Amino acid sequence: MTLRPIPVILDGDPGLDDAVAWWLALASPELHLLGITAVHGNVGLPLTVQNTGTVLALAGSNLPYFAGADRPLIREGLSAASVHGQTGLPAKHLPQPRQGPQQEHAVDFIVRTVRERPGEVTLIPTGPLTNLALAFRLAPDLPEKIREVVWMGGSTGHGNRTPAAEFNALADPHAARIVFESGVRLRMVGLNVTMQCIATPERIAALRELGNRTGAVSAELLTFYASVYRERYGLSGGALHDPLAVAAVIRPELLDWRNMPVDIETQEGLNFGRTVCDLYSTTRPANAKVAIGVQDADFFALLLERLGRLP
Amino acid sequence: MTLRPIPVILDGDPGLDDAVAWWLALASPELHLLGITAVHGNVGLPLTVQNTGTVLALAGSNLPYFAGADRPLIREGLSAASVHGQTGLPAKHLPQPRQGPQQEHAVDFIVRTVRERPGEVTLIPTGPLTNLALAFRLAPDLPEKIREVVWMGGSTGHGNRTPAAEFNALADPHAARIVFESGVRLRMVGLNVTMQCIATPERIAALRELGNRTGAVSAELLTFYASVYRERYGLSGGALHDPLAVAAVIRPELLDWRNMPVDIETQEGLNFGRTVCDLYSTTRPANAKVAIGVQDADFFALLLERLGRLP
Amino acid sequence: MTLRPIPVILDGDPGLDDAVAWWLALASPELHLLGITAVHGNVGLPLTVQNTGTVLALAGSNLPYFAGADRPLIREGLSAASVHGQTGLPAKHLPQPRQGPQQEHAVDFIVRTVRERPGEVTLIPTGPLTNLALAFRLAPDLPEKIREVVWMGGSTGHGNRTPAAEFNALADPHAARIVFESGVRLRMVGLNVTMQCIATPERIAALRELGNRTGAVSAELLTFYASVYRERYGLSGGALHDPLAVAAVIRPELLDWRNMPVDIETQEGLNFGRTVCDLYSTTRPANAKVAIGVQDADFFALLLERLGRLP
Amino acid sequence: MTLRPIPVILDGDPGLDDAVAWWLALASPELHLLGITAVHGNVGLPLTVQNTGTVLALAGSNLPYFAGADRPLIREGLSAASVHGQTGLPAKHLPQPRQGPQQEHAVDFIVRTVRERPGEVTLIPTGPLTNLALAFRLAPDLPEKIREVVWMGGSTGHGNRTPAAEFNALADPHAARIVFESGVRLRMVGLNVTMQCIATPERIAALRELGNRTGAVSAELLTFYASVYRERYGLSGGALHDPLAVAAVIRPELLDWRNMPVDIETQEGLNFGRTVCDLYSTTRPANAKVAIGVQDADFFALLLERLGRLP
Repeated sequence: MTLRPIPVILDGDPGLDDAVAWWLALASPELHLLGITAVHGNVGLPLTVQNTGTVLALAGSNLPYFAGADRPLIREGLSAASVHGQTGLPAKHLPQPRQGPQQEHAVDFIVRTVRERPGEVTLIPTGPLTNLALAFRLAPDLPEKIREVVWMGGSTGHGNRTPAAEFNALADPHAARIVFESGVRLRMVGLNVTMQCIATPERIAALRELGNRTGAVSAELLTFYASVYRERYGLSGGALHDPLAVAAVIRPELLDWRNMPVDIETQEGLNFGRTVCDLYSTTRPANAKVAIGVQDADFFALLLERLGRLP
Repeated sequence: MTLRPIPVILDGDPGLDDAVAWWLALASPELHLLGITAVHGNVGLPLTVQNTGTVLALAGSNLPYFAGADRPLIREGLSAASVHGQTGLPAKHLPQPRQGPQQEHAVDFIVRTVRERPGEVTLIPTGPLTNLALAFRLAPDLPEKIREVVWMGGSTGHGNRTPAAEFNALADPHAARIVFESGVRLRMVGLNVTMQCIATPERIAALRELGNRTGAVSAELLTFYASVYRERYGLSGGALHDPLAVAAVIRPELLDWRNMPVDIETQEGLNFGRTVCDLYSTTRPANAKVAIGVQDADFFALLLERLGRLP
Repeated sequence: MTLRPIPVILDGDPGLDDAVAWWLALASPELHLLGITAVHGNVGLPLTVQNTGTVLALAGSNLPYFAGADRPLIREGLSAASVHGQTGLPAKHLPQPRQGPQQEHAVDFIVRTVRERPGEVTLIPTGPLTNLALAFRLAPDLPEKIREVVWMGGSTGHGNRTPAAEFNALADPHAARIVFESGVRLRMVGLNVTMQCIATPERIAALRELGNRTGAVSAELLTFYASVYRERYGLSGGALHDPLAVAAVIRPELLDWRNMPVDIETQEGLNFGRTVCDLYSTTRPANAKVAIGVQDADFFALLLERLGRLP
Repeated sequence: MTLRPIPVILDGDPGLDDAVAWWLALASPELHLLGITAVHGNVGLPLTVQNTGTVLALAGSNLPYFAGADRPLIREGLSAASVHGQTGLPAKHLPQPRQGPQQEHAVDFIVRTVRERPGEVTLIPTGPLTNLALAFRLAPDLPEKIREVVWMGGSTGHGNRTPAAEFNALADPHAARIVFESGVRLRMVGLNVTMQCIATPERIAALRELGNRTGAVSAELLTFYASVYRERYGLSGGALHDPLAVAAVIRPELLDWRNMPVDIETQEGLNFGRTVCDLYSTTRPANAKVAIGVQDADFFALLLERLGRLP
């Protein structure tokens, strides 16, 4: 682990696993958080912005946050309210945000911050990649100035929103294509690993037993989440998608990685939004480091320990 | 005609017919020019920015200009250097720009200017629509605050860059789709009318006989341009595409207009970049007013008279 | 014109303009009809087969006819019952077929007949090209053994079933692609010319005044047809699509032709089924002779004179 | 196991694993072989027809065989000569065919045979599905008259010819779509199971040690095959794709099956030819029984024992 914390911008669409992911980030001294940018996704932008404020308030943080893109680049908007509840944070007794979002647009914040710290900033997007894509088109110098993008999204195998596509990829395939073709240093944490990290009843109980408010709310959110996964996939709980991307920055060795070419399907149809992962690198040079394995127990131990540090 | 000049932002990729179009705009008291934004297109962005400065210098203007997007949103870049020459302004003895471009990004300039004058500003894009599309995604309030977009691009019939697609549409089909689906008040001046407005040898001679530098350079540029049209289409000269879009703002009555639904093909393949014009409005409500006829002689008389006013 | 009649197989989906087309063929000594093959299209196959028998009966002909493909190759079936009525032949007092269809499948009939007369047979398809496409795939030697295919379908410009596509092309784009890519000698009579050949009230009256049953039924059918065209296109009657393809075999000089490359769009979406006509042959060698002009008055005079020869 | 042998038509593109598959079939009393139909695929049709004769000769069989489609329905032809050698059967000292192919076209043979034994015939295609697709379009009654289609092709996960598509699916995606949408009773044996059945050096040695000619030639073919798999996938031998489909008819219990919806991607692009398997049946009713697990050791034991029965 580096002694100096890694400068990080979190970007996402809370969304209940975004919330847990951000609490993991807020509790981890390995990261130096610079700000959070909200984007459309699991629910609409007004709610993801509001939820960002709530997530920060619950962790007792005054980190600045920013409103970003309210819709995908090209396709019509997609919502995941059936998975994340109508508000995106289906818990009672949530605190009010301590502060509103900053005036600056999320995209401008990303461009400015990366340019101020060339080569230093890691971005952890856990939603559709619209904010990053807009930043890359407005500031073509950005990809080479970013230290790394670590994205929760895509899959080397089966999708979730459709048989072919993972939700974050499908919610803005064109944005994903821009990021994957940009030359930015990129890691992908997809369904093929996150679906191995399940918030089982035992794990939810462990979170509740932390005794703090973050543990209690996390347990409440993940309990809501579990029902969808039980019905649709026959799993014993929801997958901890977004927290795994944050963990991948804190402790990359929790996952197994393979360099490979990844393309994003932008032709509308059956495979719209699919991340086409060329596991054997038969087609062209690699453009991403893709997670292909995960130490699930160690990951959850990290998550549990860190969430215990929060209020 | 309104007594008060129409506030206008010109946006384009000079390109030789962009140059002639902008001289028409610069010479026309009906328009109040607020600035020019350059975009990738006929040639690369560094050249279109440089050429914008040259076009202004030749007209003796100090209008501010801005560099915009250096590539299309999604597709790889396309160039029209075979039509517009390697530099985009194939003339000898062009003046140096009097000033460089502004620091502000073209997209930021468009967003800021439209918000400062809600309901007032007309945009005349005569290249790929990348700058407008980025502005619309960063500022979702923009389409309803713009007075009108009058675009040179697309076609109700045959294309030019491919049998199906016109160059400006093909050079960024996704951007065109964003603009056409935005709800902005929109007029389209496509190949079906611009190919009726030919810079014949007689017209080129008339421009040269104006006796001023603008007439001489216009004649020189259009002479270069003619060879492509002669070879490919058997026409007696190049088409005055971009000037017709400017004329459509100065004197809308020079063209016949029909409201109709227009869709942009973004599926890659044979029809990539085609503007699918539903002439009989059989599919859904109209989203554009499309030029379907033109008074060519009156248009050229206007152009000739105005270019005579410049140095 | 050759003294020896041209051996012809008619293929279509009656459909009321198919009926008129086939009466033109049946009455024309320039053609030696070998058989008629029915295909799905304007209405379902059972009706197009039944209607083929009726059309022959009305003309007093015992020509053998054959049932072919009951659906498109790949896409789901499309119907034009809104234009052609629920039965495809919306007239009262139609005769019963004199005979049923032959046992042999239409595709087998086409393959066998062309192989028996290599280089001699002209096919005039006036519906979706499914029968021909199946024949070409089962018998790869067929395209070079056919004298000519003269197809009513496609358009160099606007479509009719969608803004981009003509009905016969859209009803089986994959079949059209097979035929256009087969190397067969091919002429295309598309909407761009057929929409100039309108069955006006005066022309319908002239048909009725022929005094024979064929004229009376033709007038009745075309009167039904007119209402759609009046509403949708503001035309004074329906277009004589299919008869023009038959006339193009009898008297090719009634139309102006240009060799050009034609591609069929098989990507699903806005342009599905579009015949992409490269008027300036910029992309590759020509694969079709496309009608780009028509002597409408001479065509109708021919049609009227010939229909007068029938019962 | 039924006491009465299952009437079977084999259809394929030998191709070295087709050869081994057919020897398995020829040696198995559970199957009553009615004929073999050859199709384009691993190599061109003239070679797959010739190789079919050779495969039969080597097994001492006089089974009739038939030449089918020489190219895919829509797409241009694809070859796998890099995997299967220039001839498709890269072995020395192969016998000459005892007889030529039958005059009847493969598609006609399939249609005729299925109609003669409604509800009885199982088809085992181990190549592109062109022959079946043509049969289904010519004879719409066929799908309901076939007992079962058991296809080697597709994948629930990674492809082989492209990252997204398996060779047999990619070699004629439109044909695969026709078969999968036909309503026929269908089982799919894809890469996800066949890539678990490797012809390791030990297994190749066991084949050689059978002491008969079939064992020797099988060993020779699979040795050739191994090099590609070693280089590309780091596997210790080639996958026994096609024999597993035959085994799936002889002993269905060797595989684990799940009913699910399967769609074929026919949009050209990254995922062209992909079999989109909806493992959780979230989209619509199942149309195929897909193999998702295999008892590899039992399968190879069956193969070895059966090949030992041949000359």
